[in-house]
This record gives sequence, structure tokens and C-alpha cells, in this order.
Amino acid sequence: MCRFLAYRGEPILMADLVCAPAHSLVHQSLHATEAKTGTNGDGFGLGWYGERPEPGLFRDIRPAWSDENLKSLSAQVRSPLFFAHVRASTGTASTRANCHPFAFGRHLFMHNGQIGGYDRIRRRIEELIPDELYDHRLGTGDSEAIFLAALAEGLPDDPIPAMARTLKRVRGLMEMGGVDEPLRFTSVYADGESLYAYRWACDGHPPSLYYRETGTGLLVVSEPIDNRAHGWREVPKGCTLVARPGQAIALRCMNDAIARLAA
Amino acid sequence: MCRFLAYRGEPILMADLVCAPAHSLVHQSLHATEAKTGTNGDGFGLGWYGERPEPGLFRDIRPAWSDENLKSLSAQVRSPLFFAHVRASTGTASTRANCHPFAFGRHLFMHNGQIGGYDRIRRRIEELIPDELYDHRLGTGDSEAIFLAALAEGLPDDPIPAMARTLKRVRGLMEMGGVDEPLRFTSVYADGESLYAYRWACDGHPPSLYYRETGTGLLVVSEPIDNRAHGWREVPKGCTLVARPGQAIALRCMNDAIARLAA
Amino acid sequence: MCRFLAYRGEPILMADLVCAPAHSLVHQSLHATEAKTGTNGDGFGLGWYGERPEPGLFRDIRPAWSDENLKSLSAQVRSPLFFAHVRASTGTASTRANCHPFAFGRHLFMHNGQIGGYDRIRRRIEELIPDELYDHRLGTGDSEAIFLAALAEGLPDDPIPAMARTLKRVRGLMEMGGVDEPLRFTSVYADGESLYAYRWACDGHPPSLYYRETGTGLLVVSEPIDNRAHGWREVPKGCTLVARPGQAIALRCMNDAIARLAA
Amino acid sequence: MCRFLAYRGEPILMADLVCAPAHSLVHQSLHATEAKTGTNGDGFGLGWYGERPEPGLFRDIRPAWSDENLKSLSAQVRSPLFFAHVRASTGTASTRANCHPFAFGRHLFMHNGQIGGYDRIRRRIEELIPDELYDHRLGTGDSEAIFLAALAEGLPDDPIPAMARTLKRVRGLMEMGGVDEPLRFTSVYADGESLYAYRWACDGHPPSLYYRETGTGLLVVSEPIDNRAHGWREVPKGCTLVARPGQAIALRCMNDAIARLAA
Repeated sequence: MCRFLAYRGEPILMADLVCAPAHSLVHQSLHATEAKTGTNGDGFGLGWYGERPEPGLFRDIRPAWSDENLKSLSAQVRSPLFFAHVRASTGTASTRANCHPFAFGRHLFMHNGQIGGYDRIRRRIEELIPDELYDHRLGTGDSEAIFLAALAEGLPDDPIPAMARTLKRVRGLMEMGGVDEPLRFTSVYADGESLYAYRWACDGHPPSLYYRETGTGLLVVSEPIDNRAHGWREVPKGCTLVARPGQAIALRCMNDAIARLAA
Repeated sequence: MCRFLAYRGEPILMADLVCAPAHSLVHQSLHATEAKTGTNGDGFGLGWYGERPEPGLFRDIRPAWSDENLKSLSAQVRSPLFFAHVRASTGTASTRANCHPFAFGRHLFMHNGQIGGYDRIRRRIEELIPDELYDHRLGTGDSEAIFLAALAEGLPDDPIPAMARTLKRVRGLMEMGGVDEPLRFTSVYADGESLYAYRWACDGHPPSLYYRETGTGLLVVSEPIDNRAHGWREVPKGCTLVARPGQAIALRCMNDAIARLAA
Repeated sequence: MCRFLAYRGEPILMADLVCAPAHSLVHQSLHATEAKTGTNGDGFGLGWYGERPEPGLFRDIRPAWSDENLKSLSAQVRSPLFFAHVRASTGTASTRANCHPFAFGRHLFMHNGQIGGYDRIRRRIEELIPDELYDHRLGTGDSEAIFLAALAEGLPDDPIPAMARTLKRVRGLMEMGGVDEPLRFTSVYADGESLYAYRWACDGHPPSLYYRETGTGLLVVSEPIDNRAHGWREVPKGCTLVARPGQAIALRCMNDAIARLAA
Repeated sequence: MCRFLAYRGEPILMADLVCAPAHSLVHQSLHATEAKTGTNGDGFGLGWYGERPEPGLFRDIRPAWSDENLKSLSAQVRSPLFFAHVRASTGTASTRANCHPFAFGRHLFMHNGQIGGYDRIRRRIEELIPDELYDHRLGTGDSEAIFLAALAEGLPDDPIPAMARTLKRVRGLMEMGGVDEPLRFTSVYADGESLYAYRWACDGHPPSLYYRETGTGLLVVSEPIDNRAHGWREVPKGCTLVARPGQAIALRCMNDAIARLAA
């Protein structure tokens, strides 16, 4: 179980969200309150869009709470669309390549959740990644594998159905592998312009996900980074928050997608 | 506030104490229960005596709970006298040189506590280290400085009075510097044969310290590593546990030492 | 291209070979002379047998030349059979899991060489690892994959033919993948008692490999660690050095094995 | 001996100088040609001015040649004034705090050279740092100490005389300490607007220093990052290159400064 944060709006310094708030993501790395584990000390990552189509990535295996580079970099870099993530490993090694977010071309992805029985069906899940993307498999964890599989499944063109199809295939592999543990998937995907935040699970217990519209843009978080009275709203279970250029923020609650996951 | 463990007795595999017990030190790195901070993720260290007079040191800045090297090394190395420490930084940087234990020649030291106002009086405290030892000042923290100062004060010859004199001088510097925060000092020192475990504070609130005699030797810990029913005893405040070759374990409770600290 | 060292004989301190000699492995991490690259700074590793059947592993991603832990650990631990390796990455990430040696149960393996076109045929090579071992695939590099594939191919029972069969399959995959670069394989395998050092290549250019019998045992190295006059002998191309309990050191030069590789 | 690079001019992506050129600084981390040591693998650092008066800092202890974060960050961040440095330790530990550049407020500094006998006179040199700056002494190396001492000596107001006075004091301490090794000082200082590049030594052998005016600004380097035909000029020994807003680039060759150093 990890903690994350995503922002989309007018360019702001990343530190304004990552470090400054009372219950900032850096604070949550040591004191998360809505996660199974209060400590998220197995690495961290920033992914941000600047002037290139491809996002920048800064990931390290140290705990976020004491990382000077994270503090300095986030205080200097202004971005209209960025992700930040603090990791609590569920077993996979602490390497940079296993830290979120993951980038491929202009695409960025991060995840908080679990693929039940991953260590038993890892090879099957990796088979969902086509040959032409397998070379970009740099780590060994479940989240990166799902990201690459979803890209092949059409994520850039059709973010919600493609992700639903991908997870349905993962569910199928879990069943074939005799896995009883659930698939829980709270994640964020961006392509440099639009942002999609998913809150899905096959057992009705996806990790928490909140959002708020600030004066400058949209903020999506695992758990609120400041006093709850400040207008945080929960993304309902089974829904996806969609933020696209020139459109109002929308919730897409696809009953059939959930049904398919739960099938 | 950190957590630590020391053992002296028949040679045993370090993992038997560091990793195996239900509430082992590795477990405490993520879930300490008697410390101010439950997470001790700012590095760790092992110091152990083998066949040389000088102890081996293995220290790293990663959290102990996910360190493969710590697990493997402690499962292989058998020692009659060793220290293990997991660190929660009170501000000093996460570097190997700032991780405990500290070694000098055949001497080994680790600490859990605080030198109130250290950042304001650091230079004064470093002045307690004589020139001939200053070259061995590899880190920037308070614990290493006290160790080097105590060595110069006669620690190897007279471990309790020399440490008392050192801390009295530190207290004097704190007063001169207008420091209100307390000096709390729970630590362990060994010279390859004898072991001294101090539990002192100028305000009557030293960090916890327990010991137990096992079938093979003496175990000293910040907090019990298994069910309390197993015969753990507390080192009383103001006392020092002394374990010397050929002698029974003894408690030395020097009222004047405490008084001098509190002065 | 990496540099390595293996020892088998009477128990000695690892530092006697790893750190002390004029051209020790630590020295070679910065100044190798017979390798394509003089710098081997992409991590290092020690694997050693102690009192357990399984070897200990100590691997890190820092350069060996400045690692205090490597220095201290190797000065303390005595072993009758150990491997040391300094790494020059050919592209795979610097993670501990990608550092040599690799261990599985009582088996230990390290490699210096290259699987031509690995990034293009990695998935095919990973398919040589059977399901029951795939869970032990912790890194992403070619050497670990070959080790796991060879274990499945019968390495523990028949070290030379099993390795030849494994590499023949790798060669087949390289051909199928249209890879022109060669397969060069200089490596060492041990099971806790016996040691096998391979020097094979499909193009007649395997990396260098030397051995010497010292007063206490057998030493196998990528390049001599001291003055060449001291009795170093080269393992001939296409041969395997075999050291088994109660038997004289032998060279096995299997023409058909090489032929099969070159086929 | 280290390698470094500084840029001042129109904002450019840092990667254009740090990573892209044929003999870029990242390339020099593995293959420097004008340094005593060809390998500069003991960490690296970036310091850059963005929209704040204080520079950003990104420093790490891994070798620059394989650092994904360095590559990504420098490809995203555009700056009108930045420093990059790859380190070859002369003995001080590999910690982030010992990596260059060093920052204090709006001031930035990096160094390539040596304070002869530093380990013997470190304490004396640290005494040049006044109390009010000592709290900012985060590492243990000579370069940071000189930077803090020079700040106290008036560096921001009078960069050349203040640095000369500082080094003269250092020279005095070296003499008092009976140090025979030379003081060699090739370094760069910036305050967010102006840049000063020093090439001084007490024995007439300062490390190399070159500069070039590009289409967008001034580039200062330890050794040229591309074909020498491209207009590189050497900063003469004993001189300081000065680049101030609204003024032409100038060389200040203070005979008396050198004389004072050599005294």
C-alpha cells in the first residue's frame, strides 16, 4: 500500500503539494493515516511534464522524508501536470525501476493497490506485455507490468475501456492461477494533457482516492493532504475521475467495467 | 530516537537476535513500540567481534526492514559480542558515517538518546575531541562526537567515570549555550571483552533499556524483542549494566554521576 | 565486462584476496588492465560459504573501491570457498539484484561475458527458466537468467554438459533472433564443495581466465591479482577448470561442447 | 581531482551540456582525459538557478554515467546559470553532503583541486568557519569548508580578494601544520547573477580550466567537452574569469593574489 498525489492545472511548484501541506505526501511517507501501513519508506518518485512531450522522472529508493534532492527539486520545478508517489513495498525489491511513477513516451502511470498472488502469476502477467514493449520492462513489479500491458491494450486511445480490458485479463490469470486474494487498483494515468484516476477493485474494497479543485487546478490524492473541511471529495468505488482539456471534470462509473472485474 | 540490541556470550548467529524474534530489531525498524517514533528507517548498523581485536562494521542508510545484505550477513556471521542498531534521525543526515555503531580500534559504541540543542553547540562538543582523534571524526552527529570525546576522557580504562565526566562536560556546554532541552543518554560500549550499558539522563527520563540472561549469554535491548514474560528486566534509571569476563553481571547506580549530570 | 575472483581451499579471510594484493579485485574495480573497460564501478558482490549449506551474499551498487562495508566485512569473514565480483554494466540497471554473484539454495554463480543482443531476446531467454524457478528471478540481467536456466537444465548434477546444453539453447535463441554479436561466457559455479570455472565463447574470444594454486588453495581470477611471475596459468579457451573434493584440479576441454556453442 | 562545468547565458536545458556533447561531463565521469584520474565515479551534482534566488541542488553518490535521474532531470530543466560536477574523491567519504556543488542562500560553489594535508589540518581549516555558518557545515570535506570560510571572509561582496584572503589563511594553516603538499584551487562561484572561475595554485600547477563563448552564453569547463577546434580558450594560471551582468567577460590576473598564495 502506497500513497500518491497527482496535479493538473496551472503550473505550480511541486513542493507546494509534495512538501508544504500539513499532511503532505512527504509527511505521509512517515505517517499515513488511511493506509494499511503507516510507513511508506520503500522509495519514492516524481513524474512531471515540462516543455517536452515526455515527462521527467525522479525516483529513488531512500525514504522520501529525509531526501534532500526531493525537497530541492520539488521546490524548483514548476509543472502543469505531475505525479508524486511514496512506496510501501508488498515484497518486490527496493530499486529505482520498481518505484512509481512509470513513464513510457509521453505516458505516465502510478498505482496503489495489489495484484493478489502476483509472485505466483508474475510470468503470466508479464506475458500480457507484447514483445515490442517488453524491452521497456525495467523493473520486476506488478504495477509496471500492468502499465505496459494496458498500453498495448489501447490505453492511450481509450483509457477506461482499455484499462478495464487489461484488468479483466489479469483477473482471468489470477483465477487460472488459483489466486484467492483480491485485485485492488487505485491508480492514475496521464498522457501529458488528460488525467484519469481509477478506483476499482474486484472485491468492492479499492484503496481510498480523493480529489479537490483548488484555485489553480485539480488535485487527486490517496488521502487528503490537509484538513478535510477543505472540500475533499471521494472518488466513488468503481469510478474513474476524468480530467480532459477544455472539459469539466467528470466521474465515469462503468458498472460493466466493475462487473467485468468482479466476474 | 533509535532502537538497539547488544549481545555478549557464547558465539551465536547474529540473525538469531537481529532478524528471527517476533519483535526483532528488524521488526522494530518498522514497528517500535516503546520509542517516540515507531519508524526507525534512517539507516542501520551491525558491529561485531570476530577473530580480530577490531570489530567488523556493516552500516547502511537503507531501512533495515528491506535490506537483503543485513539479512544474509547476520544469518552467516557468528559472534560472541555484537551490537545492532536501527536509526531514527533527529536531524543529522542519513550517511553511513552517521549510522551506529561507531568503532575506533577495538572499541565499539552505540547510542539512543539526544543531546539537546546539538545543532547550536555542535562545534563546542566537537572541541571535546582532541586533535589526535579528530581525524577519526567521519560523520557529523552527536553520538560519534561523544564517543570520541569519551575515549579521550579515559573510556577504555574507566568506562563509567570517564563517561560521566564526558557527559558532565557536555552538560556544561549545553548550559553555556543556553540549551533548555535535556541530555538523555542510553548507550552501550564494548572493548571486545567487557560490555557497559548506560541509562542516564539529566531530567530523569532516559530512553528505555532492558536486559535478559539467555541460555548463551547477556542480551541488552532498547525494548524487549519477544514476549515480556520471558524474564526481561529493566536497567534502572541512572544505572549502568556491567558485564566483564569472569564476573557476574552487575548494576552500578552512581548517584553522584547522575547528580553531576543533573547539576 | 566485469572482473571476478574465486577461491577454494583452507578457510582464509576474504580480504587477503579481495583487498590486500597489489592488483586486488578492489584495485581492478578502478584499474582493470585486461578488460575492455578499465572501470568496473557498477556495483560489486561477495558470495561465501560459511557454516550453512547456503552461501552468504553481500552485494551493493556503489563502486567497490570506496565501499567501507566491503572492506570491513571481507577483513572479518573467513571462508573456504568464496566469490567476489566487480561489475561493469553492459546496459542493465545498477541494482543489487543485478550484481553478481547469484545464489540459489546452496548454488552460487558469477559471470563475465556477454549474451549478444540480449535486450532483443531477453524474453526468449527468460522462457528458458521454468515456472518453479521464475519466482527466484529477482533481477533483469542475462547472467541471472542463464544461471536459473542452467539449474533447470541439470547444473547441480552435471555441471559441464548442463551448462553446454543451456548455452546451446541460448545460441539457438540468438540465431532465431537474428543476433550477430557473439556469446562469450567466462564464469564460475560452485555448489558449496566443488568449483567449476568455464571459459567458453562461440567466436573463439572468451574473456580471460587465470588460476593459481597457492599455499592454501585454488585461486581463479579474471586477471592476475599480483605479479605474473607468481605462477599464474591461463585456462585455455573452450576449457573448464574443475576442482572437486579429494581430486586434483583438472581441465576439461570439451571439443564437442565448444563445437555445439559455435554451431 | 574532479571534473566540472558551469554555464551562464540564455536559459538552456542542462542536458545540452551535461549529457549530449561527445565528451560531455557524464562521459568524463568515466573517461576524463586531462585529469590525474580518468574515473570520476564518486558521486556527482547539479546546482542550478531557476525562478528562486536560491539554486536547486541535486547530488548523489552513484556514478554519473549510470544515473537515470541525472539524465532525466537535466533533460527537463532549463536554466540561465548552472553548475555540474563529477567527483573523484581524494579520501573523504562518498556522501551527498560531500558532493559538489555546495549552496548557501543564493550562493553556489564547486571546486576541483586539493588542500594538501587536509586530513592533518582539517580542524584548523574548519576553525575558519565562523559559528554562525558552522551549522551549515553538512559534510566533512575541504571544499565545503573553504566555501563557508570564504563566505565569512566577504566572498559575496568582493569575490576575488575575499577568496585570496581565505586561501592565504589556508596556506598559513598548511605551513603551521608542516604540510608540504601544494594548495591547488580551480573553482567556480556564482551568486545567481555573476560567475567567477578561479585557477590558482601555490606551486604553479593549478588544475586545467577552459572557457568558450557559445551562441547563447559562457561555458567554463575542466576540460573541453567537444573538439578543441571549437574555440576553447584556457584560463591562464593565476587568473580569474569574471562574468557579470551587462559587462564583457574579463580575466583578472592578480599577481599579488598569486604571490600571496605562494608566499
